[in-house]
Amino acid sequence: MSTSAAGAASPETPPDTPVTATARRARAAAAALAPLPRTPRDAALLAVADALVARSAEIVAANAEDVSRAQAAGTADAIVDRLTLTPERIAAIAADVRDVVALPDPVGEVVRGSTLPNGLELRQVRVPLGVVGIVYEARPNVTVDAAALCLKSGNAVLLRGSSSAYASNTALVGVLRDAVAGAGLPADAVQLVPGESRDAIRELMRARGLVDVLIPRGGASLIRTVVEESTVPVIETGVGNCHVYVDARADLDMALRILVNSKAQRPSVCNAAETVLVHADVAEEFLPRALAALREAGVTVHGDAAWQKADTAVVPATDEDWATEYLGYEIAAAVVPSLDAAVAHIRSWTSGHTEAIVTGDTEAARRFTALVDSTAVMVNASTRFTDGGQFGFGAEIGISTQKLHARGPMGLPELTSTKYVVTGSGHVRD
Amino acid sequence: MSTSAAGAASPETPPDTPVTATARRARAAAAALAPLPRTPRDAALLAVADALVARSAEIVAANAEDVSRAQAAGTADAIVDRLTLTPERIAAIAADVRDVVALPDPVGEVVRGSTLPNGLELRQVRVPLGVVGIVYEARPNVTVDAAALCLKSGNAVLLRGSSSAYASNTALVGVLRDAVAGAGLPADAVQLVPGESRDAIRELMRARGLVDVLIPRGGASLIRTVVEESTVPVIETGVGNCHVYVDARADLDMALRILVNSKAQRPSVCNAAETVLVHADVAEEFLPRALAALREAGVTVHGDAAWQKADTAVVPATDEDWATEYLGYEIAAAVVPSLDAAVAHIRSWTSGHTEAIVTGDTEAARRFTALVDSTAVMVNASTRFTDGGQFGFGAEIGISTQKLHARGPMGLPELTSTKYVVTGSGHVRD
Repeated sequence: MSTSAAGAASPETPPDTPVTATARRARAAAAALAPLPRTPRDAALLAVADALVARSAEIVAANAEDVSRAQAAGTADAIVDRLTLTPERIAAIAADVRDVVALPDPVGEVVRGSTLPNGLELRQVRVPLGVVGIVYEARPNVTVDAAALCLKSGNAVLLRGSSSAYASNTALVGVLRDAVAGAGLPADAVQLVPGESRDAIRELMRARGLVDVLIPRGGASLIRTVVEESTVPVIETGVGNCHVYVDARADLDMALRILVNSKAQRPSVCNAAETVLVHADVAEEFLPRALAALREAGVTVHGDAAWQKADTAVVPATDEDWATEYLGYEIAAAVVPSLDAAVAHIRSWTSGHTEAIVTGDTEAARRFTALVDSTAVMVNASTRFTDGGQFGFGAEIGISTQKLHARGPMGLPELTSTKYVVTGSGHVRD
Repeated sequence: MSTSAAGAASPETPPDTPVTATARRARAAAAALAPLPRTPRDAALLAVADALVARSAEIVAANAEDVSRAQAAGTADAIVDRLTLTPERIAAIAADVRDVVALPDPVGEVVRGSTLPNGLELRQVRVPLGVVGIVYEARPNVTVDAAALCLKSGNAVLLRGSSSAYASNTALVGVLRDAVAGAGLPADAVQLVPGESRDAIRELMRARGLVDVLIPRGGASLIRTVVEESTVPVIETGVGNCHVYVDARADLDMALRILVNSKAQRPSVCNAAETVLVHADVAEEFLPRALAALREAGVTVHGDAAWQKADTAVVPATDEDWATEYLGYEIAAAVVPSLDAAVAHIRSWTSGHTEAIVTGDTEAARRFTALVDSTAVMVNASTRFTDGGQFGFGAEIGISTQKLHARGPMGLPELTSTKYVVTGSGHVRD
């Protein structure tokens, strides 16, 4: 235990603003939620699911404002589609909330427990984090998903969605708050961060002592801003510069299947592959096949000299390419002289999300998994499997690419902390 | 999983300075340590223990420089004593290192594992955090303790001790590095942060991407500075504004024993009590007895009106007192009308370290433990038990008072992260 100099130890008190006032209300709601058992939390979530369906007309009407604003601004159809809510989509969101209700309760789980030699009974118990701030972009379904996961885990949530979905999010949060309050829980367990400007995010990031954790979900620049500027603890999520390494002893049919799936099955997501590295021993055979398959999948290849030599359509790769998360039909590609060279490339450029090796060599698989320092390492499987749903967690608030607290897909346990409860009968220290 | 905008995802690269150069060497050492099994790490630690004893004359000589500098500066005897190393003390430090060797290896532990419905084999495996920075004050034994715990858990460590112990720390780190290198591990697994100025700490705090976590151990102002200014993730430790609440249904003999032990058994440490709250129903009987016992223990009481009325020697308490971690023979004291009022006081003023209730009422114990949101809640036991050694963890790098990653005494598992290793046979997603 540390010996420290005397000093005031009161919590920091951020200045009063609309954002901190919201956070203070969330704090009070969190204090009321924390001691509740599962039943009232689940009841509130079921009320939320019912209310979303019952009030879907109202939500669709609000969403129409966002949609027409986006269309007027010339937003791409794909993005407008992701923004759009229909009664069917709202019903699906409500069904997801019911799925969350069915998940095991993380709160109250005894993580570790023992009776100490002196008879003290030690229990380490899962407790809610308290107030969770989520800063996210685009799709309004995240509003409901995030709120449901936070409520299920006993947390109050502060939601800061995209300004392009402001009307939709306002309507959704209104429905959520009414349902939560109707079920007898504090409405302030679910709040939208007030204000549409960037200043609101800045205030949220400085609300240390009021907000227990901030989870940014979105593009690299949003995440970097939050990580750099926040004094509230942050869980970094989602940026995925993922690699597929085709080893000297790979089954090349398997490698092809995994490469194309990792890159092109859904290129816009964080667990899609962005670089392929091929062992020199199999380059001559694999490159033409990979180029043909990638071309067929509509993928442009940014390659090193070896890849350029294999096909004139290959765009010369620069360091920028090794660093880029394309999130589209593009891939960086290099030939490497050894597994260790592949590992060195990955360690230099990865965002630490997911890397895959394709190999039939057990020692190569062992060395790759030992040396690669990323959230997930796949052996003979697509990078696309790094996902809370795929991992069987039932739900996911994001994929952490940092090492502290949570690493990889975050389910309900990752939205909790623990506390020690120690019971004695008058025990004192000698 | 989040859908993100495209962007460069390469790790941030802090500017080149002596501190970041040190961190880069640590990073390389961490990469070499991470895949090592237990045996070579333990062998290096045993070599460290032997070398500390073998070279204790050299360490004592360096320490004498720090000691005479401190004496010349008029440093208090107690602090000079804590700074002083003798061959006996060095032998005790070496024995502590051997105790660390005997602890279970946290690295490689499979935390969670299953075979997914599609046949993918999922394992969540403990891995070292990577590069751990420790910023600490005063005692040079922390240099060895922290390095031993980091090495045992497969991490490289960057040590930034007090400038008052600079010569001692330099000598100790020299011995550690020689022993580590002699055992075939990279010497750069243990490094002192270069430079004696505060700028070095500032650079360390901005070395995000090179340093995986910073753990400040020391006074409130050091910890606050690191928490506010660091972009490297921080684990907040040690500030303890701990409370003892004497309930209406307390055994007052037990309450007295726990109060005096919590406050006075070792007042300079973070798990010592700083405030006592007494239920109004037992105030008349308890206050005179508490005042007598505290006086006998040499403790000055800063009390509210009720405590002042009980004894003219009581100093009137202000809000400053409720917030203060005295770390000495002083205590703040109040009478509260109810358990909920005690909880409200604690929630307002606590640093979230340890709170104790003394009660014979099971429902009061249950309510107090549910409502108090601190690292540890004691029922009928002294606050002084919040300690890695007392909890049976074998060793402790500090006591986290934050909610993310680790909360409470941090042992070896808290110095690790995890990664997912997923093994398939050509699995791709539909």
